[in-house]
Parts: sequence; C-alpha cells; structure tokens
Amino acid sequence: MKAAFQGVHGAYSELASKQLLGQSIATLPCESFQDVFDAVAAGKAARGILPIENSLAGSIHQNYDLLLARKLHIVGEAYLKVEHVLMCHPSTSLSAIRQVRSHPQALAQCSHFFAKTKRIKAAPYFDTAGAAESLVQEAPKDIGAIASSYAAGLYGLKVLKRNLQNSADNFTRFLAVAKLPLPKTAGGAGFKTSIAFMPKRNAVGSLHAVLGVFAERGIDLFKIESRPNPLSPFEYWFYADLAGSPADPAVAPALKKLAGLTSDLRILGGYPRATRTSGTARAAGAAVPVKPRR
Amino acid sequence: MKAAFQGVHGAYSELASKQLLGQSIATLPCESFQDVFDAVAAGKAARGILPIENSLAGSIHQNYDLLLARKLHIVGEAYLKVEHVLMCHPSTSLSAIRQVRSHPQALAQCSHFFAKTKRIKAAPYFDTAGAAESLVQEAPKDIGAIASSYAAGLYGLKVLKRNLQNSADNFTRFLAVAKLPLPKTAGGAGFKTSIAFMPKRNAVGSLHAVLGVFAERGIDLFKIESRPNPLSPFEYWFYADLAGSPADPAVAPALKKLAGLTSDLRILGGYPRATRTSGTARAAGAAVPVKPRR
Repeated sequence: MKAAFQGVHGAYSELASKQLLGQSIATLPCESFQDVFDAVAAGKAARGILPIENSLAGSIHQNYDLLLARKLHIVGEAYLKVEHVLMCHPSTSLSAIRQVRSHPQALAQCSHFFAKTKRIKAAPYFDTAGAAESLVQEAPKDIGAIASSYAAGLYGLKVLKRNLQNSADNFTRFLAVAKLPLPKTAGGAGFKTSIAFMPKRNAVGSLHAVLGVFAERGIDLFKIESRPNPLSPFEYWFYADLAGSPADPAVAPALKKLAGLTSDLRILGGYPRATRTSGTARAAGAAVPVKPRR
Repeated sequence: MKAAFQGVHGAYSELASKQLLGQSIATLPCESFQDVFDAVAAGKAARGILPIENSLAGSIHQNYDLLLARKLHIVGEAYLKVEHVLMCHPSTSLSAIRQVRSHPQALAQCSHFFAKTKRIKAAPYFDTAGAAESLVQEAPKDIGAIASSYAAGLYGLKVLKRNLQNSADNFTRFLAVAKLPLPKTAGGAGFKTSIAFMPKRNAVGSLHAVLGVFAERGIDLFKIESRPNPLSPFEYWFYADLAGSPADPAVAPALKKLAGLTSDLRILGGYPRATRTSGTARAAGAAVPVKPRR
C-alpha cells in the first residue's frame, strides 16, 4: 500500500500520511493536488492524503472541488499541529546562519523570530520540505531552513530551534481518500460523515429545512460551510460534516430525506473521527473508532 | 483619507483599495494584517482593506479572528478577479527570460505556463508585487515577474503576457473596515450584513433555530461558515452574511431575536453589496446600493 501526497519528501502532508497510515507506509510525492487524485484513481497509490482546512487559513476549496469532480471517497482524517523547526546542515551552527529558506507562509508564521533576530533574513522558497532538502547537497554554512522536525530527521539536518511559529494554535486537518468507501457498517459516535449538497432553491429557507432533517434526529454537525458554485454564481454548494457513519440508524434515513430536499447530494465519505488533541485516527480500511471529540 | 493594506505597493490588496475607494485614494502599505487593523484603530488610515475569502483557497480565518478581536466595522466589499500578468524590465524581452519570480501560490496558479515553457524556471518570492518591484532596481535581462497588471503599470514594467493563470475562475473578496460603522439606515436589497455568532449549545438544533429566525422573515443568506473556536475546541463561531442592512425592517428584529439564541453575537457591519461580475461597490461612507447579486 502506498499513500500519494502533494509536495516533496518531508512535507507536512507526508507526515500526515505517516500519522494516518503508520510510520512504515510507502509514500508517493505528487506535484499537484490533481496529481494526487490521479495517482489514486489510476491505482498507483491506495490512498491520497490531502490538506482540507487550516485553523488560520481556512478550508482549501480546491480540494473540495476535486472531491466533487473526481468521486474518490474519504476514508479517514487527521489533525496535524503545524510546528515549525529551524534547521541547518550538520556542518554549521546557528551563529553562522544569515538566511533562512521556507515557504512565504511559513516565514510569515515565524515573523516574531525574524523580528527578534535581525542578522537572519527570510528567504522565500517553494515549500518547507524543499527548503530543507536544498541544504543537503549545497551544505551552505550561512543558510538554514524552516520545515517540520520530520523533514529535519529525513534529511539528516541539525535542529536549531523548535516551535519557531508565532502562534501555537496552528492545526491542519488532512483527509485520506481512496477509490472505494469504507465498508457500510454503523459506526456511531466515533464516526463522521462528510457530505456536499446544493439546496433546491438558493434561500435560507431551504438550508433551514435541510438542517431540520438533522435537528429532528439529534444528529450533530461538526462543520457547515457555503461555497458559491464557481461555474454558476447564483448557486451554492454546502459542505457539512455530521456525527455518525452513513449507515447509522439515524444518519441513513436523514441522508435519504436530504436527497429529496437537494438538487445534488454527494456522500463524500464516512470515516473514523480524529480529535485535535489526539491528532490522529487510523483509517487503513478497518473501522477503528477513536475517542469522540466531545 | 488613506487606505491601509497588507503588502507592498502594487499588491492585489492595493488594487482592491483603488477599486473600492477610487483611483486617487492614498494608500498605506503594512507588513501584516494586524498592522492594517492597528493603522485604522490609530487613525493613521480611515480604511483598512483586507482579503477575506478566495474562490480557490477559501476564507481567511486570520482576518475573521482579527475582526472579532479588534471591533472595527465592515463598511464595504469588493470582488477582485485575480489576473496574473507576466512582466519584465522594459530593457529586456520574453526571449531573454529564463526565470520568473512570484509568490509560490501565484507560481502554482500559473503552472501550465511553466510546463509549456520549459526554458523558464519559476523562482519563489515573498509576494507578487515585491517580485515586480525587484525588477526595477536590478533591471535583470533574464528575470521576469508574475503580478497584477496594476503592479506592472506602477513599476513601469513591460507586460509580456496577460491571464497567465491556469483557471480564469479565481476571485478574491476584499472587505473595507473602518473605526465607525456606516450610518444606521435601511439599505434593502443592495445591502449585506455580516455577523458572527456562537450558538448557546454547540448542536445542530441550535443552528437550526438560528436559521429559523431568518427563514421566518424571508431573509436570504449569502454565506454561512462554522469555525472551531481556536481557544476552546468544543465551541464554534459561525460567520454569516445576510441580505439587507442591520436597520432594515426585517433584519433589525431578526438580529434582536438572534441575541437571545446565542451566547455571543457580533454585528461585523452592514454595507453595500458587491457582485462578482461588477467586481466592485463604492463604500466611502455614503450608502451606494449596487446591482443586487440575484
């Protein structure tokens, strides 16, 4: 079994793959999110690992678009705490560093460090793991990188400082997608179901009716988000995450009812729920309930 | 009057300032979104211009967090189509270019161009406008930049190719914020009200009750989004955009009713609504209704 992810070896997405599917999982780096979907659809990888939302930057609509267009199934999720590490080649040390490479977003998330340490300049790079990798061949004395501690370990780099980011509250939620959904069994409180729907009429009344279907049955909602349909500015998609699996005694009839209230309804997947504290849930085929979020 | 924005001169946010407040508006570049809020709160700028959501990348939660923490008021919005332009110093030409600088996200959005034009390598930079600016002093023969046509004009650069991005469907929505809200007058269909609320209990039933308040009164919703409270993982904030202004005959009692159903309710602002096709709405204090979105 292989997991496809966007980025180069050492990326936060690869770390999420290991967290979801075990440390020994083989991984397939892909250039774009689209390539991740292609790799799974073509059977080159059994799982695709995709970032879907970040606590600071919000939902990654691009991956929702791909989920709607490509019809792979969500089979798992993981929350990853983004912890940036300052690293350098083992042949050098912090006092020699004058420049630090990373993705501009990571550099911005570590702006307090650069404000304090004026002799060190931030240098933009394509991605965090690529910045780490670039230090291996070049072995520069005066250049460091900001990436995950996982990337530091992978490339044999020296860790200079941990938790370099300004805010400790930076989580990314990742999804595992596969060609086939998990087996249709009742999962209960340890499960989550992700759906996307387009109400029949684009009005608050129809969303209210949709939510009534869940409220009546006591089904909790973990997420709801509207998204204007890029192809038709007068229509909206809604993304929602519900408590329970699609086969649960309360969820199954709710989804059936929902089909009648929407012009399009997609069950994106039912899967074991992860918590932000545990950070992880296994999703390798078998239904492994995890500690409920609340 | 001055508009504060995050970035350097030529940024898409500065272009949005001009679109919202007129071409002659003076602008104040700021290092971070936080600095934009500070500039407005301190009276250094009458308006702050903030990206709040992008059609591919989603809502910018960081700016919602600042809206909740800082209590400035939304007084306008604009939709800006992201159109990337390839540019170079006027002393050189396309055939000489071997490298193109831009923010990694902009480079990724133009990946088809780089796949087709193998002799040109993508070079990451802090931001699009900064990449454009860097060509002015250096005047390199073999380096170009990807930024807005506005940045090309501002820095006197030569435009080589327009609409370099893979997808034409890339919009960013910007908000104008100010110390004081717009005058409390009924605005009707040309207006929008942005609110944030925390339901009393974190369950679908309470969200259903909240939406009932709007459904009963025929108030349309343009956006709804849940956001886990970063400080308390078991609580959610909801962001919603409603049709009408806070003083409208239907909206005012709805907001009053809502206060009783929520543990926290913030009226982030009532302001003239922009359309994605018109791309703009004036917001310089006076209430200027624009073409309704639907």
